[in-house]
Amino acid sequence: MPPLRIAIAGLGTVGVGTLALLRRNADVIADRCGRRIEVVAVSARDRGKDRGVDLAGLTWHDDAVALAEEGGVDVVVELIGGSEGTARKLVETALAAGLPVVTANKALIAEHGTALARLAEANDATLAYEAAVAGGIPIVKALREGLAGNRIRRLYGILNGTCNYILTTMRETGREFGEVLAEAQALGYAEADPSFDIDGIDAAHKLAILASAAFGREVDFANVHVEGIRPISVTDIAYADELGYRIKLLAIAGIGEGGVEQRVHPCMVPVETPIAHVEGVFNAVVAEGDASDRTVYEGRGAGAEPTASAVVADLIDLARGARTPVFGVPASVLGPPDTAPMDRRVGRYYLRLAVLDRPGVIADVSGCLRDEEVSLEAMIQRARGTEVVPVVLTTHSTPEVRMRRALERIAALPVVRETPTLIRIESP
Amino acid sequence: MPPLRIAIAGLGTVGVGTLALLRRNADVIADRCGRRIEVVAVSARDRGKDRGVDLAGLTWHDDAVALAEEGGVDVVVELIGGSEGTARKLVETALAAGLPVVTANKALIAEHGTALARLAEANDATLAYEAAVAGGIPIVKALREGLAGNRIRRLYGILNGTCNYILTTMRETGREFGEVLAEAQALGYAEADPSFDIDGIDAAHKLAILASAAFGREVDFANVHVEGIRPISVTDIAYADELGYRIKLLAIAGIGEGGVEQRVHPCMVPVETPIAHVEGVFNAVVAEGDASDRTVYEGRGAGAEPTASAVVADLIDLARGARTPVFGVPASVLGPPDTAPMDRRVGRYYLRLAVLDRPGVIADVSGCLRDEEVSLEAMIQRARGTEVVPVVLTTHSTPEVRMRRALERIAALPVVRETPTLIRIESP
Repeated sequence: MPPLRIAIAGLGTVGVGTLALLRRNADVIADRCGRRIEVVAVSARDRGKDRGVDLAGLTWHDDAVALAEEGGVDVVVELIGGSEGTARKLVETALAAGLPVVTANKALIAEHGTALARLAEANDATLAYEAAVAGGIPIVKALREGLAGNRIRRLYGILNGTCNYILTTMRETGREFGEVLAEAQALGYAEADPSFDIDGIDAAHKLAILASAAFGREVDFANVHVEGIRPISVTDIAYADELGYRIKLLAIAGIGEGGVEQRVHPCMVPVETPIAHVEGVFNAVVAEGDASDRTVYEGRGAGAEPTASAVVADLIDLARGARTPVFGVPASVLGPPDTAPMDRRVGRYYLRLAVLDRPGVIADVSGCLRDEEVSLEAMIQRARGTEVVPVVLTTHSTPEVRMRRALERIAALPVVRETPTLIRIESP
Repeated sequence: MPPLRIAIAGLGTVGVGTLALLRRNADVIADRCGRRIEVVAVSARDRGKDRGVDLAGLTWHDDAVALAEEGGVDVVVELIGGSEGTARKLVETALAAGLPVVTANKALIAEHGTALARLAEANDATLAYEAAVAGGIPIVKALREGLAGNRIRRLYGILNGTCNYILTTMRETGREFGEVLAEAQALGYAEADPSFDIDGIDAAHKLAILASAAFGREVDFANVHVEGIRPISVTDIAYADELGYRIKLLAIAGIGEGGVEQRVHPCMVPVETPIAHVEGVFNAVVAEGDASDRTVYEGRGAGAEPTASAVVADLIDLARGARTPVFGVPASVLGPPDTAPMDRRVGRYYLRLAVLDRPGVIADVSGCLRDEEVSLEAMIQRARGTEVVPVVLTTHSTPEVRMRRALERIAALPVVRETPTLIRIESP
């Protein structure tokens, strides 16, 4: 068989990692494919930059889109990133020309996945994106192929290593969010502009992609409910410990009578669940199929080598001639998004208030809950000898809409002195 | 596309589960494959038995091998079991005729995998066996495809749900092995003849298969070092707890300078590792790639539906036209087995002795260790007021061969009153 000739657009850490991995393991990869995978062309912004890899013999393009236009290439690997601009143009150009595309670009797939799947199929090309979700964990393959006999009912996971690192470190060191974030930035675990990660958007991108692959529906990133981890304090983490929980930023998708649920927010998860023990920069996904029941996948969710592992897996699939529909079924069969509004969520809640330490406060707060038919499960209040004291309570299962109304009433009480912290309790 | 016509040999729980799953999810499966998967023929021992599924319209064969001989079938699904007899004959006949085979038969693949891979490739047929290892966890796909860009250095896991259920229940209830085994048999978690499971053979079958898929070597079940869980007592489990470990039956394979390591035996694993928290009938596999680093896969390792999930995933691959070499690389490229002997193992050990409570005993025992250059890490001895008392010790890392020699000396000491219990400590 002739070699599979690939072009790599973007020579950041993942691009360089992919090039290095293809070279380091070239022998076993050739054995596994029955042919060699050869990088023939690359594109990046700065030709003069020393990236620590030898680019001799590779065709260089200043314009990434040229990789899809010049011929002599069997696959385009898009590692530029971003949902618009060059990345999008390159992918669209390649697919329109019938060239298969491998990408690690979660924003692109989350924002334009359905249209790109249609474009790919119309041109008999493949669009592969294992590297876009959960780094070195082969979760896209697990959903589209490994669990392909199942109806997936539900999936959830820890999809952002930066947030998980911050929450883990806050718990282990007792240091507050801002300080730990600054450290994560210094260590390279968080970007200079960290909002994509810590506000939950990155996890929401990945969730929208996984939900489509799992449920066979059009990608609906726009309607994912997203909350990040900025409001989480060390105090909440300590109360979580006391109550038998860990605080994790979970991405949750499910399918039920009310539609498709897609949400990313901090959760309290019982300390005895597997997901509670996924620490630091590790990611994990739990997928529940009607036949498989619960399956769990854990590994490194980011980094040059784990992400390159996923890119190369997709390339090996192509070299072997494997063809799987982009989201598991042909784009024409994808169902409409049908994302359910967040207020349909039914579950338990943790609420932390800062209240004036005076008689009648608890009656006021519990009255607000009673008026909205929210049933109190437990309350922690301790004398502190200070004017303002914390009150923590948990509720029995209740609709989100009722909890929100109760929270509004509580926040408006004159004795409540700070914005209350509400964290959903999930018992997956 | 015309439907994929399949024949199922064996209508036990997995066969019936596969039939039921193919029917229940026929619509989504057809969407995912672009064609229907239709069961056209079946074979089992007793035609008259009520299995709770409708067999009307299916061709019945009393002789399973006829399924591969009669024509009109695109794939043979072998769910009879056993490494010889009808199962082997059916698989060989089908492959020789160029018919793809999907099987859940770990004994067959472990014993004859290399020869069957050669036969399959010589006849341009596929041999798929996701269901042979770890039930509903798509671990074969993860190794052969998801991690295909990696050199896998090491894999280990809990591959036998019966053993894990027994060990978990012993720890939770404090009841001894025999009693818990009897209960597992009553619940259907253990066979009437449980030796395949509890003596580690079933886990060794699965390990030999995974090692081949991971390392690209011929299957070498014959040289897997196997020990089962019969010697484990509640006393050891309690000491493990005290020392910060859980006792698990681990299957471990690694590749290094000394060759390929393949072993199944009870281990003490630190309570803070993910594998320590895999409880009951769940299975888990950890695979370490040079690029992916540690990846973990967990799920139900047995049962009609999880196993059917794996069988149907293989059928969907076939219906989609995917072709992966049987053990990840063509059979002609598989390396020789090169399994290293067990005495090359280097690691820590737990040793429990029953000794006479008299002066000088500890000196005698520690002298045996010193003479073999085994370094003592910790020792637990408590006054009991009985004639025979337990002494528990752990060692620093030492070669197995030295530990074995020290153990022989210790067992021969007159003050040692029972066969010592030796458990390897693994810190994966």
